[in-house]
Amino acid sequence: MNGTVRRGNLIVLSGPSGVGKDTLLAGLLKRVGGVVKCLTATTRPPREGEQHGVDYLFLSVEEFERWIAEGKFLEYARYNQAYYGTPLHLVEESRAKGLDVILKIEVQGGLQVRQRVPEAILIFVQPPSMEVLRQRLTARGTDTPEQIERRLRIAEEEMRVMPQYDYLVTNDHLEGAIDLLRAIILAERARIRKE
Amino acid sequence: MNGTVRRGNLIVLSGPSGVGKDTLLAGLLKRVGGVVKCLTATTRPPREGEQHGVDYLFLSVEEFERWIAEGKFLEYARYNQAYYGTPLHLVEESRAKGLDVILKIEVQGGLQVRQRVPEAILIFVQPPSMEVLRQRLTARGTDTPEQIERRLRIAEEEMRVMPQYDYLVTNDHLEGAIDLLRAIILAERARIRKE
Repeated sequence: MNGTVRRGNLIVLSGPSGVGKDTLLAGLLKRVGGVVKCLTATTRPPREGEQHGVDYLFLSVEEFERWIAEGKFLEYARYNQAYYGTPLHLVEESRAKGLDVILKIEVQGGLQVRQRVPEAILIFVQPPSMEVLRQRLTARGTDTPEQIERRLRIAEEEMRVMPQYDYLVTNDHLEGAIDLLRAIILAERARIRKE
Repeated sequence: MNGTVRRGNLIVLSGPSGVGKDTLLAGLLKRVGGVVKCLTATTRPPREGEQHGVDYLFLSVEEFERWIAEGKFLEYARYNQAYYGTPLHLVEESRAKGLDVILKIEVQGGLQVRQRVPEAILIFVQPPSMEVLRQRLTARGTDTPEQIERRLRIAEEEMRVMPQYDYLVTNDHLEGAIDLLRAIILAERARIRKE
């Protein structure tokens, strides 16, 4: 009953490698408006066809470390000899316009976000079982058996962080899981803020 | 990833008279499974066709007051010289089976529920504007102009309690409002409990 722009929510989507986060996110963005993905900054070199400002913000190591020192990242991590981080100003710009911003990041990044933005909404996507996750990683065909075992061990560690998240979505049935993510987005918009 | 029965949620639905709670609730129950309305106990006499145990639990004043003394109500109120109350045991039975229980009660009852069941989920339904509410009450044709003015004054008082609720649903478009209620129910089921 009032016309002020409501600040968008900040939503973190985490879950084991192979659980289907990208597919879920693509489906979600088709089903609900007013949600944007946030660009990630990285120091890894662009792959063929990747564009600065479209796929990633490609920064030099020096730039990235200056941004870290200046507190310009909502969260960041080192992974495979490269930095990855979420630029705070991009998140803030979208939220100020009333857009919900969704970050697909791993659990340690999710906990960093929670520390800096206590009202962030943390969603954990889990596989129906570890066995299903193993089958999906195998079917993907991009990893060696050793890499798959390593990913499964990491998945088990991630599952231990899950209780610190707000919502748990089991990706057993794609359409159902997308519908549930959409429900969480809509419900959180209707939440009465206690600030 | 575990098979224990999750206890159902307790959901309170409140909002001004004429805002459309009954229509929303009927639409919601068609759209989502696992949700039940809780029977209300009352001391008012049954109207034609109303059955004990189906429409209401019809209690004598003596019984009702004994139940109050024994703490058997989750919440109760006096209204038009009659008692109305939500029997705690009915709520608990359904929740133990994993069913979400929904109570359509006024805001003072909602706040009583919050005190006894801190994890209860409180949803407030508001009209698009007070003017629309006035039009709906007039169109209903069941109230005198004086009764309508009285209902509008009560509605304004209820709006002041709204910030203590968890969710705000504006009933401007019936299907959209039902979809949002459904989203809240589904999202709350996916919430990771911090007990």
